[in-house]
Amino acid sequence: MRTSKYLLSTLKETPANAEVISHQYMLRAGLVRPVASGLYTWLPTGLKVLKKVENIVREEMDKAGAIETLMPMVQPADLWEESGRWTDYGPELLRLEDRHHRPFVLGPTHEEVITKLISFELSSYKQLPLNLYQIQTKFRDEIRPRFGVMRGREFLMKDAYSFHLSQECLSNTYQDMHTAYCNIFTRLGLDFRPVIADTGSIGGDASHEFHVLADSGEDDIAFSDGSDYAANIEKAEALAPNTERGAASAELAKVETPNVHTIDEVSKFFNVAAKDVVKTLLVLGEHEEGETAPVVALVLRGDHELNEIKAEKIAGIAAPITFATDEQIKAVANCDAGSIGPVGLDIDIIVDRSAAVMSDFICGANETGYHVTGANFDRDINNYNVEDIRNVVAGDPSPCGNGNLTIKRGIEVGHIFQLGTKYAEAMKAGVLTENGKNQTLTMGCYGIGVSRIVAAAIEQNHDENGIIWPDAIAPFKVVIIPMNMHKSHRVQETAEKLYAELTAAGVEVLFDDRKERPGVMFKDMELIGIPHAIVVGERNIDNAQVEYKNRRSGEKSLIAIDEAVEFVINQ
Amino acid sequence: MRTSKYLLSTLKETPANAEVISHQYMLRAGLVRPVASGLYTWLPTGLKVLKKVENIVREEMDKAGAIETLMPMVQPADLWEESGRWTDYGPELLRLEDRHHRPFVLGPTHEEVITKLISFELSSYKQLPLNLYQIQTKFRDEIRPRFGVMRGREFLMKDAYSFHLSQECLSNTYQDMHTAYCNIFTRLGLDFRPVIADTGSIGGDASHEFHVLADSGEDDIAFSDGSDYAANIEKAEALAPNTERGAASAELAKVETPNVHTIDEVSKFFNVAAKDVVKTLLVLGEHEEGETAPVVALVLRGDHELNEIKAEKIAGIAAPITFATDEQIKAVANCDAGSIGPVGLDIDIIVDRSAAVMSDFICGANETGYHVTGANFDRDINNYNVEDIRNVVAGDPSPCGNGNLTIKRGIEVGHIFQLGTKYAEAMKAGVLTENGKNQTLTMGCYGIGVSRIVAAAIEQNHDENGIIWPDAIAPFKVVIIPMNMHKSHRVQETAEKLYAELTAAGVEVLFDDRKERPGVMFKDMELIGIPHAIVVGERNIDNAQVEYKNRRSGEKSLIAIDEAVEFVINQ
Repeated sequence: MRTSKYLLSTLKETPANAEVISHQYMLRAGLVRPVASGLYTWLPTGLKVLKKVENIVREEMDKAGAIETLMPMVQPADLWEESGRWTDYGPELLRLEDRHHRPFVLGPTHEEVITKLISFELSSYKQLPLNLYQIQTKFRDEIRPRFGVMRGREFLMKDAYSFHLSQECLSNTYQDMHTAYCNIFTRLGLDFRPVIADTGSIGGDASHEFHVLADSGEDDIAFSDGSDYAANIEKAEALAPNTERGAASAELAKVETPNVHTIDEVSKFFNVAAKDVVKTLLVLGEHEEGETAPVVALVLRGDHELNEIKAEKIAGIAAPITFATDEQIKAVANCDAGSIGPVGLDIDIIVDRSAAVMSDFICGANETGYHVTGANFDRDINNYNVEDIRNVVAGDPSPCGNGNLTIKRGIEVGHIFQLGTKYAEAMKAGVLTENGKNQTLTMGCYGIGVSRIVAAAIEQNHDENGIIWPDAIAPFKVVIIPMNMHKSHRVQETAEKLYAELTAAGVEVLFDDRKERPGVMFKDMELIGIPHAIVVGERNIDNAQVEYKNRRSGEKSLIAIDEAVEFVINQ
Repeated sequence: MRTSKYLLSTLKETPANAEVISHQYMLRAGLVRPVASGLYTWLPTGLKVLKKVENIVREEMDKAGAIETLMPMVQPADLWEESGRWTDYGPELLRLEDRHHRPFVLGPTHEEVITKLISFELSSYKQLPLNLYQIQTKFRDEIRPRFGVMRGREFLMKDAYSFHLSQECLSNTYQDMHTAYCNIFTRLGLDFRPVIADTGSIGGDASHEFHVLADSGEDDIAFSDGSDYAANIEKAEALAPNTERGAASAELAKVETPNVHTIDEVSKFFNVAAKDVVKTLLVLGEHEEGETAPVVALVLRGDHELNEIKAEKIAGIAAPITFATDEQIKAVANCDAGSIGPVGLDIDIIVDRSAAVMSDFICGANETGYHVTGANFDRDINNYNVEDIRNVVAGDPSPCGNGNLTIKRGIEVGHIFQLGTKYAEAMKAGVLTENGKNQTLTMGCYGIGVSRIVAAAIEQNHDENGIIWPDAIAPFKVVIIPMNMHKSHRVQETAEKLYAELTAAGVEVLFDDRKERPGVMFKDMELIGIPHAIVVGERNIDNAQVEYKNRRSGEKSLIAIDEAVEFVINQ
């Protein structure tokens, strides 16, 4: 491809409102352009990357025995009514009406369509297992689309759905998909981790997320340094400390603590570490609609953070977690939020495992402006349950039993679920088994955010000059940069010859034949992130050489013109 | 692919409501399934065909220098307001609102998005010409979706848009696209014709449709038997007859014609040919909204049909053509519809070229139950204009000047337009020219109905047993049909070996390893239309042979097992 016949569309300035580096570079390198909030046009360079990701995903899905289909983006509402999600799914589900006022949705996912399809197509249990996938445009009406294609509204997704007679069979396909995903992200050239995940609102029994590791990731992931264990921090268990609780040795004493509210302020006031202070949070308990909600106390070590996902799974706590208002706090603890403590609090109390081994600790006195010291469980606080309700922190023992945890940030690009019978039951998808009984199907589902991968790859692979594409998904493998071609016949001749030879050899090559200064070309090509560059200049031609530059390492070397094509092919 | 690991989904019965053969076979062969009216899931076999069509389209567009992009399906309404189509486009444009009640459309086409994009991206006239395309899902809210994917609501389309500084440059790209389209349909293996077309509501200056010829096509196409000339019948000019009008020789006479209304009835009553009778149609003339519409008479030879597209382009006639009601007829002609005639009719009269050379003809008398004979232009009818307002018929001289016309039926699968400046003007898309002036861009647009091609290919290529795919778009090149494999180790061994070897050679092969009777397998594979079949049976193995069967010709031959792979590759 010649730049003169191409739509390069690089920008010198970073457009406003582009917060993350991938969004900035995708705009500046001419990969995408916004059409409206969360809606993008993929320009030629961006689409080349997207198609490469798509093809790798397709090849590995095919290899794993999944069969490609294509379902419509517009789906009739009655399918969603049948599954129950017409009401359960939030406003991210874009609902619309056709010209006859029949209700439809723009599909954010396709469990309903595929389950209904399979319930009609299956004529024998012998056809199972089946794993069907599509690579298709989805729509999710995000309330605040952001980070470019990372969290857009219209996006490209690979979604697969498998159907089984037994959990064992599902487990096998699930494992095959796990392996296929590892193959996909390895081939994409990304540093990734499969992590144990919460099953969230899709429901089901087991789940892994696949994360591209990047400091800018939205998710925290806990890794063991002594095993393969990795889990989304939402899901990583904080083991009970293997230390026993110390005996109570101090007396309970009330201390006036004016203007002391936060854990930081408490630890400074008493000159103790945050981990020697207890933090008490009040949240709403489960209740019927219209009833007054009970309030539940959550007690954590001062240096620990509440894990809401864990907490909302505890019986008696309302999901999603809702913190008590100042009035609700006043009503049960008779104080402001900064002075709550478990001592003398006559409501349900859940104590985190790590807090439960503390003794002689400081906590709020349930009286505004006061804390107590020397507090002890069982002596001063009697009715409580111990649970895991905190986020793990670096250094925690790994829940797998081997090693300690480290925390890294990741971008979720894939998610696999064991759905069980949730959708098949709702939509009555079954098949006659060998002994003539109708059996509800067991399902798995497997997603990959194809367009999001493009952004995640940039978050992980860039420097201050632009994108550094992994070779497998680079828009072009190599760029030919001729220096002042329009003034030098020799440069032009050499560049054209290399271009013709590389093209003939099947190499994807961009030939920057613009009448631009070399500096402009270098900047553009570094921004776009083409992995390999061949610079053709007068001086090197004298020695029958061209310069090779590697985008990632920055290393330069001189290579003989006659060997340049072979050299590029071997990169 | 083994059928046992695949979703074959053939049906024995033709589903109700499938009117055309392509729709019937697409359902029966397991290519698509309806999800809702005009919305289909592409099953694995259908998707394989669709992808092959898509890839051929992509390769030829790339070869022609067009650059691929991908625009969103959901488009903001403001772009459509800017172009004027938010109000001009009918209810096929599905309008919707997002969660913030902002208006959007589901794109049936992308002139607005691409014109707005280019108006931002173009920094220099030197970047022109540019031809950008996408292969993308479109939505058109048809009032009555029918014929399966032939006229569905969600469909896959290739749409390209080119940008130029001059009409000459547009003409060059238009010609390149014409050539690319011919290459595409030739590679697809279809019998097609590019035909001169009306530009319709998209507007613009020149237009060709590409039709797949098939008896079931919705469009009539006129071909010259003496040249390359071909045009949609909407557009084909009916030349003025080269015969002079005969002199008036008969007297005008009124004849009572009770219960004679239609041309057929008139010609029977008078015992003359329909071509000797004149047909008079009354339509509404141009008028302001709210005003009473004037009525215009259209006069044709009795055996000719009105061409509404031609008629509505004549100044003074309202577009679209609206026929006068019985009351309106009564008001101007003082009779019923069956007795109108041009003699003594005091309104604007448009006479078709072929009618204008008639003399001594029969027509309505403008008195219910009466006709006149011996009518003559200029003597009996004075104020009239002569225009081409009829459809051409077989045998008409070709408007190109060479040969005569024949009429065939076609299915429109592609359409190319010279748009001119219509969208660029509305959306202020221009660029600074060499001499520093801002110049509005000139545009072309080029569509191919990718999913419709699949149906059109079937309409053209089938027999009573099912589909007969052209090799280039067949879902599989060859099927291996083992006879009673589960009872014969030798059959199984031979079939497995051939399957392994063909797969290793990169041939797309379907191995029908179901435990089915041979008859069931043959029927299914003929229905699906796989071009080549290798039948493995005990008896032929005795002679180290397998049977080859060609789907299109039905010819069978025995080939040596050792040569089977090579044989298939060479088909």
